[in-house]
Amino acid sequence: MTVLILTREQDVTADLVVAQLNRTGVPVVRVDPADLPGQVALSGEYVHGSFRGHLSAGGRLVSMSGLRSVWLRRPGVPATRTAEPSAWLTEESSQALYGMLRGTGARWMNDPDAARRARHKPWQLRHAQACGLPVPATLITTFPQVARDFAERFPDLVVKPVSGTHPQEPPRTVPTSRIAPDTDFAAVAFGPTLLQRRIAKTADLRLTVVGDRVLAARKAVPSDAHPDEVDVRYAASTAPWQPVDVPARTATAVHSYLRGAELAYGAFDFVEDADGIWWFLECNQSGQFGFVEMDTGQPIARTIADWLAREEPEAGPRRTGRIRATP
Amino acid sequence: MTVLILTREQDVTADLVVAQLNRTGVPVVRVDPADLPGQVALSGEYVHGSFRGHLSAGGRLVSMSGLRSVWLRRPGVPATRTAEPSAWLTEESSQALYGMLRGTGARWMNDPDAARRARHKPWQLRHAQACGLPVPATLITTFPQVARDFAERFPDLVVKPVSGTHPQEPPRTVPTSRIAPDTDFAAVAFGPTLLQRRIAKTADLRLTVVGDRVLAARKAVPSDAHPDEVDVRYAASTAPWQPVDVPARTATAVHSYLRGAELAYGAFDFVEDADGIWWFLECNQSGQFGFVEMDTGQPIARTIADWLAREEPEAGPRRTGRIRATP
Repeated sequence: MTVLILTREQDVTADLVVAQLNRTGVPVVRVDPADLPGQVALSGEYVHGSFRGHLSAGGRLVSMSGLRSVWLRRPGVPATRTAEPSAWLTEESSQALYGMLRGTGARWMNDPDAARRARHKPWQLRHAQACGLPVPATLITTFPQVARDFAERFPDLVVKPVSGTHPQEPPRTVPTSRIAPDTDFAAVAFGPTLLQRRIAKTADLRLTVVGDRVLAARKAVPSDAHPDEVDVRYAASTAPWQPVDVPARTATAVHSYLRGAELAYGAFDFVEDADGIWWFLECNQSGQFGFVEMDTGQPIARTIADWLAREEPEAGPRRTGRIRATP
Repeated sequence: MTVLILTREQDVTADLVVAQLNRTGVPVVRVDPADLPGQVALSGEYVHGSFRGHLSAGGRLVSMSGLRSVWLRRPGVPATRTAEPSAWLTEESSQALYGMLRGTGARWMNDPDAARRARHKPWQLRHAQACGLPVPATLITTFPQVARDFAERFPDLVVKPVSGTHPQEPPRTVPTSRIAPDTDFAAVAFGPTLLQRRIAKTADLRLTVVGDRVLAARKAVPSDAHPDEVDVRYAASTAPWQPVDVPARTATAVHSYLRGAELAYGAFDFVEDADGIWWFLECNQSGQFGFVEMDTGQPIARTIADWLAREEPEAGPRRTGRIRATP
């Protein structure tokens, strides 16, 4: 049984997990879909009611029925590193590869269709609410008047993108920013805008959940931090991430979240307020974890490797049932 | 309770269904996501653990919690008909609209994530096999030698695209074509190729499945038809589509297919051979049905309207459970 990792050639995070997988003795094949067709080749035969598939990469031939798990890390776009790339070849190669892999019965970290749904922030907020997680009051709107009313009710506000990353070349992360309640909200009509009540935070929290394991880290906000520093990714603080215990209620809720989302991996961002409440901000199904592992020493790469190498699905999405948790 | 139809402005098929919906008395709102933001506006508020969303189009304001069903017909790309379109605005608008709608609890025809998976032809073939449908021997490969071996075992062959439609402007349908077994298969290495045993067919079959209703039509192949005429979409035959009874086994299998695929609608293409066996070719989750309704008089538009207007989910994907049927 083999673990298949779909990612780019340069991927330090994948390197960490591969090193841990080598420790388990389970064979690993690493493939960048950008190399299909070419360096990567595939074949699948549907005869007499059964399917036999093979994948070839780096001189190795792997049976698709022998795949224990697939880690969808940061795969390149299919067929973009072939001799004559085209949109048509990308589409054909993508359908061939992901269509076959979807039918193998291997466990996914994460299932591509579940992952696609889980990337929608409005869905995340609703799903988090349904799982019992505290969600800061949030508005997504194209109605200027609704934005004005919301700002009156929740004058301490932040604005953030609905979708996450600006698709320019190279992609740009759009930071969460504080916004004054008397802002002119007329421009909201020209693009859906996400406004959220700012939580006066005492710490940022990152819960990395792998199957049924929760690895939680906390980064304290210095008492003299400027309240405009809302986005931990851009904060000046040099405080390290430190391991932290997770309240039982929160642990139950994040498990329920991932089960309902049909994900095996999720990186949750929370903020802690002065009352000790953990407020859900988002769950990134492909969130980085290297910086947390570096600071805390938590064995995240190893936990991922163990999940991928494990023989039987023990947590995460089940193979025979899917649960749609959102009402 | 309202039915939401997401489609382009020009859509005769949607017009047919809207006419039938008007008969039921259930309110209908028709939205083209290309008009968001602008002609279409939206708002969603996440406060105190609950969600309240609204959609405005054509001067009407609809509550998202009042949506009974969503018909994902042929929607335009979000934000492409706004004042200043951009990839970023499309992404933001798409996430806002589809993220909110995913969280409303409305029934989908079809659920967008399930539909995405179901478009993969290799997945379809495996899933059809798992549901007990006869699938003609098929190979998808980038290995020339494997293609040669397959052609030796199954010398009467057709070739078709893995993905369906060539993405040129306007998109071009690539017909299924017959191919000689002594073809030079060297070029297979440059793009995944789908080869399939040609079924010497006596008829084409189209099963339009809406919830738990199967509307089946048969188009006989004239006895003097040229065997190279494999693609019914390009055949010279003027024989009409005629209603046909569905064998119980096939009906059970297509229901199992749609349930496993989590789809409420599917247009199945089969071919019938001289022994009366119905061979599965594909299931198009957004397949047209107007031409069948026109020839057969089968009430497909009306059946779709009834499914959309119906109060309780009676078939199709369930709201609280998902079944992954592929092994």
